[in-house]
Amino acid sequence: MIAELREGIVPTDPAIAVAARQRIDALTKPLGSLGRLEDLGVRLCAIAGGIPPHAYERRTILIGAGDHGVAADGVSAYPSEVTAQMIAGFLGGSAAINAFARVARAEVYVANFGVREPLAPHPRLLDLNVGYGTANLARRSAIPRGDLDEVLAAGVAAFDECYARAPFEIIALGEMGIGNSTSAAALVAGFTGEPPARIVGRGTGVDDDGLARKTAAIEAGLARCRDFTWDELASEVGGYEIVALAGVMLCAARKRIPIVLDGAIVTAAALIAVRIAPATVDYCIAAHRSREPGHAIALASLGLAPLLDLDLRLGEASGAALALPLVESAARMVREMKTFAEAGVATAETRGPVET
Amino acid sequence: MIAELREGIVPTDPAIAVAARQRIDALTKPLGSLGRLEDLGVRLCAIAGGIPPHAYERRTILIGAGDHGVAADGVSAYPSEVTAQMIAGFLGGSAAINAFARVARAEVYVANFGVREPLAPHPRLLDLNVGYGTANLARRSAIPRGDLDEVLAAGVAAFDECYARAPFEIIALGEMGIGNSTSAAALVAGFTGEPPARIVGRGTGVDDDGLARKTAAIEAGLARCRDFTWDELASEVGGYEIVALAGVMLCAARKRIPIVLDGAIVTAAALIAVRIAPATVDYCIAAHRSREPGHAIALASLGLAPLLDLDLRLGEASGAALALPLVESAARMVREMKTFAEAGVATAETRGPVET
Repeated sequence: MIAELREGIVPTDPAIAVAARQRIDALTKPLGSLGRLEDLGVRLCAIAGGIPPHAYERRTILIGAGDHGVAADGVSAYPSEVTAQMIAGFLGGSAAINAFARVARAEVYVANFGVREPLAPHPRLLDLNVGYGTANLARRSAIPRGDLDEVLAAGVAAFDECYARAPFEIIALGEMGIGNSTSAAALVAGFTGEPPARIVGRGTGVDDDGLARKTAAIEAGLARCRDFTWDELASEVGGYEIVALAGVMLCAARKRIPIVLDGAIVTAAALIAVRIAPATVDYCIAAHRSREPGHAIALASLGLAPLLDLDLRLGEASGAALALPLVESAARMVREMKTFAEAGVATAETRGPVET
Repeated sequence: MIAELREGIVPTDPAIAVAARQRIDALTKPLGSLGRLEDLGVRLCAIAGGIPPHAYERRTILIGAGDHGVAADGVSAYPSEVTAQMIAGFLGGSAAINAFARVARAEVYVANFGVREPLAPHPRLLDLNVGYGTANLARRSAIPRGDLDEVLAAGVAAFDECYARAPFEIIALGEMGIGNSTSAAALVAGFTGEPPARIVGRGTGVDDDGLARKTAAIEAGLARCRDFTWDELASEVGGYEIVALAGVMLCAARKRIPIVLDGAIVTAAALIAVRIAPATVDYCIAAHRSREPGHAIALASLGLAPLLDLDLRLGEASGAALALPLVESAARMVREMKTFAEAGVATAETRGPVET
């Protein structure tokens, strides 16, 4: 399974990035004046292997969902049953992600990779769950190591199913799972070596006691780890939706489809994917920097600069959805703007002597 | 003219902002988890006088254009004729703003408020010019003080003409004018009292010598000022497009239509508008923080927090256009999301005792 997923994920070509930068530098605007949007344009060209053939208007948002045994330790401001309740909201169209998906004109799917409660069938629900919530990572392995392949396969199945229903040119990933900011923080600490106290944040809004419980749970989970490989960390402190989202990312990278990462939890999934196939990072776009302290650390370790900085910490792909119009803008910049030569505009170099 | 413009611009109601915040706090998301988008939602409600009746999908982008005599002093990397050349690009659809306007599905108009060269007629060009470029602000008054009323009136005419052609629910403002970052920096320095050296930036990309010439020009212009009133500053160091854009803003505020400010130059126009009618600021939304140092200072003096921070410094409403989908997102959040009670989701308060 893993070998198969790895296959075909190739790094983007630096020569194409250089050519893209040259083209962007020649467009009718002062050099570098579109700032970070220019960097995004370069990245899109590198992913596409040239000028993108479209503006990424066929968009899918996939929310991976799973529950976390560690929620029993009071690491969240909300009880586990909220996972299923929020999913009902996503499917009913009344959540933040639905509002933002309307702006981005994107398809929204929810994949159940490990929600505690059974979920009623729904046309936009992909029921692929491998377990009914993880075990409590503070006390024992969250996911049996032998199940990881199956969890990654669930991610692959989710990607394939979404693509079969409505082929897309870009995928934005989000998550839902009470307790999953604890699992994500543990993964980020495990992968980066940063102390949990620097990584951990208030997630949905726990108080100081909750924060202390969260840190203690992470430390207990990481104390069981020996070699800090992706599969050890994923098994000991991971989550069904996090591991499965890594599988989704591997599929997207293999198809050279840009992956828009939401917040801290999705970025933790990217850390797993990149450990499995390092070139996956070339296909990732960081939508935003969340208020979770570990998120910036995880992004830095991936070498990704976030587009938005709006103090978001909701998850459910909300930040990723907000970034989709920026991706379209960068693609249209590259595809639709004329160069100085094409437009017959004087360049800085053609300026005559300064009258003084 | 001024008295008439002032009339009817009333501050937004703080009680409506409080009610909006309460509604946003009750939506199905952790408290405050949509960060700065929540602040934007509150602002939109305050402007609308309640929940906005729409998602601001009828959008107009207006680019005010004018030339600047100070360009002769070598304050820009580009010669003055680039103003007219870039306008041809906006009207032809090949500039950055056109690419971004397609993403935002917005109408684009260019208003000639004072371009040096005559412009060929075009359906999307509003030819309202009062002069053919300002005088060199380093040596004499940029605009005769007696003409300011006429320049503001040109802004009013531009607003009315755009509105008559396609009524809009939001207006994004931009500018084009070689040399206008010098005028804008002079206005910001004059209005805020900050030293020009702290305000001035490289604009389109001048070198160190150009930067020194820019600072010297601003200091020379401000040395003629005595009382630093809006009309003294607008006349001594202003620009046709900057003053006219202030007129556009006054019209929008009077109609309770949100005004999306682009970068440093449009924000300098907002400083003028706010001096004429202070409540205008309640209707302003800062799209982004540009790389021009004076921009952050101007925004802070208006009490506005920018939405995007992408190192943009292009102008032509590019940053304002990029922010339009965020405005729609905030409006949809307020209008379309259910509250916890409506959705039947457990809140943080309903969580049972922590199992430890």
